[in-house]
Amino acid sequence: MENVYNFSAGPAALPREVMQKAQAEFVEWNGLGTSVMEISHRSKEFIKVAEEAEQDLRDLLCIPDNYKVLFCQGGARAQFAAVPLNLLGNSNKATYIDAGYWAQSAVKEARKYCAVDVFDAKTTKDGNLAAINVSDWNIDPQSAYVHFCPNETIDGIEISDLPDTHLPIVADMSSNILSRKIDVSQYGVIYAGAQKNIGPAGICIAIVRDDLLDLAHDLLPSFISYKVLAEKDSMFNTPPTFAWYLSGLVFKWLKEQGGIDVIEKRNAEKARILYDYIDSSEFYSNGVHTQNRSSMNVPFQLAKPELDELFLIQASERGLVSLKGHRAVGGMRASIYNAMPIEGVKALVEFMQEFSADYA
Amino acid sequence: MENVYNFSAGPAALPREVMQKAQAEFVEWNGLGTSVMEISHRSKEFIKVAEEAEQDLRDLLCIPDNYKVLFCQGGARAQFAAVPLNLLGNSNKATYIDAGYWAQSAVKEARKYCAVDVFDAKTTKDGNLAAINVSDWNIDPQSAYVHFCPNETIDGIEISDLPDTHLPIVADMSSNILSRKIDVSQYGVIYAGAQKNIGPAGICIAIVRDDLLDLAHDLLPSFISYKVLAEKDSMFNTPPTFAWYLSGLVFKWLKEQGGIDVIEKRNAEKARILYDYIDSSEFYSNGVHTQNRSSMNVPFQLAKPELDELFLIQASERGLVSLKGHRAVGGMRASIYNAMPIEGVKALVEFMQEFSADYA
Repeated sequence: MENVYNFSAGPAALPREVMQKAQAEFVEWNGLGTSVMEISHRSKEFIKVAEEAEQDLRDLLCIPDNYKVLFCQGGARAQFAAVPLNLLGNSNKATYIDAGYWAQSAVKEARKYCAVDVFDAKTTKDGNLAAINVSDWNIDPQSAYVHFCPNETIDGIEISDLPDTHLPIVADMSSNILSRKIDVSQYGVIYAGAQKNIGPAGICIAIVRDDLLDLAHDLLPSFISYKVLAEKDSMFNTPPTFAWYLSGLVFKWLKEQGGIDVIEKRNAEKARILYDYIDSSEFYSNGVHTQNRSSMNVPFQLAKPELDELFLIQASERGLVSLKGHRAVGGMRASIYNAMPIEGVKALVEFMQEFSADYA
Repeated sequence: MENVYNFSAGPAALPREVMQKAQAEFVEWNGLGTSVMEISHRSKEFIKVAEEAEQDLRDLLCIPDNYKVLFCQGGARAQFAAVPLNLLGNSNKATYIDAGYWAQSAVKEARKYCAVDVFDAKTTKDGNLAAINVSDWNIDPQSAYVHFCPNETIDGIEISDLPDTHLPIVADMSSNILSRKIDVSQYGVIYAGAQKNIGPAGICIAIVRDDLLDLAHDLLPSFISYKVLAEKDSMFNTPPTFAWYLSGLVFKWLKEQGGIDVIEKRNAEKARILYDYIDSSEFYSNGVHTQNRSSMNVPFQLAKPELDELFLIQASERGLVSLKGHRAVGGMRASIYNAMPIEGVKALVEFMQEFSADYA
């Protein structure tokens, strides 16, 4: 099929150029006569891949030297356990800001390991779903850390401010890492499953401030220990080498695009085009307050939900795929991560216009 | 480079036909216009991939219905923690049979969670390295389980008998799963990192008898809980979908070859060719007793270790790559997993003959 635009929430579309390069060298890579996934992770050829990927990520996010970059397994859900097990130290409490499903999932896992203060940040503002300013919370200084998820994929809520605290801030950036500039030095730990903005499912990045490496629980499994991973350059166990390599290609692609400045502008433009059209339409609606609308995940509802199925079929026939909303919300969801070109968003809006003209 | 034979211990060579098929459909898979790694793990297309992979593995190993097949993340090292955390129940002891590096690594991790009885099974027999019959051990019936690693990749020791016990037997088959017939019903848990005989690094199979699903420690992270993974069809967290897909292609390839019966014969023939040549040679030696020689990993030494480097260079020029032995043992190691064709072993022997003729 030509010109497919894939709006999957994750695993999500990767840059087409990256996929084509990986395809070309899939069986015979780097003159070795084997693929990159068939060589030792300790070979000099793979070490170069691994180190370049780390350096490119450091360059893209301006990661300070006092932060380790770890390539982990198990996705963000592994981090839901890894964060308390690595960071609690002598504390028996952590604070979680809850603006949606993923924050709640992190809370549920953390409760195995400690008491959890939960601040419910989901609210209603001007009749729309919103997040209360997270900087307003009064956080217990006995907490080991403050956890939040700045982009909730299901409701499409993005939080741009940070909790006002001296405690380490831990952010699950699975769905918005590398989409916009961040100041890494404001965080204790940033983690992100790869399958939205980084690479294929099966690898997870953790960026950890190095003063937080000595706070682990006795029962922390070694393979999710930040300290062990840092000491072993993320090769305590055999890493998912192909996913690491492919993530590295995505980082190089991001640099070629002009880095995060350029990507952030492009993402803002993509989101503007889509939200502007939705707001201008009588037929489509998005129920999130403008202050908290995600630039990555854009849920929208049709005025006639009985047409949802038809919308999905016709969109798919046009090469606009994976638009079905999460079952918890219904309707549609367009995930427009870094790899989605502006043309994809314009094609979606064009189709939405035609569909509403036909059926509104 | 033409005709490269890759003897890497892992990540290891995958069947060339599998790699070529995956390359052909890498960017556009299954008529979707996207790759298999860019679609939701919950899509009907991926569910089909996942279910077929499981069924093919069940067929290949004749896995009984009372065993769950789990597709996990974190590799075998994750299982080093997952096994005690999932299986200890009310016991505070486990028994480990130690025939080498990997068993010892499992012991080290298990000691975080319980007392560990270790039986040292590595011995000397007729002047060679060997394993004591593991069925001879007197195992404490208070142990929750008995763990062993039937193929030690570094020394090249393979154990063919099983501990004589009514306790659940847990086997780390990372380096010999699918290489020969096994009777799954004799085990409580079998696990195997993929990167030798299954697929790319980043996925790990666990085959778990279903009466062992309710013995978990309170602090077991959910993403390595056998029960959670079983209940969620290994999709509690986003699984490494591409690795799962590629493993599924390997399973189909194994069936096309004629299944495990045929593969076992081919592996025995490959090992026979190589060991017979080594034994007939004055220049090469393998220090493992014939009863315990691995059919997967064949370490061998040159009579003149000062020629090791030259051997590796010349072998590599002939397309015989990744033959360097593990640093703990030195010399050479030829890993001849399922994907290594007989022609590769013959080419290695031919080169070894020429090299010894030139330099012995």
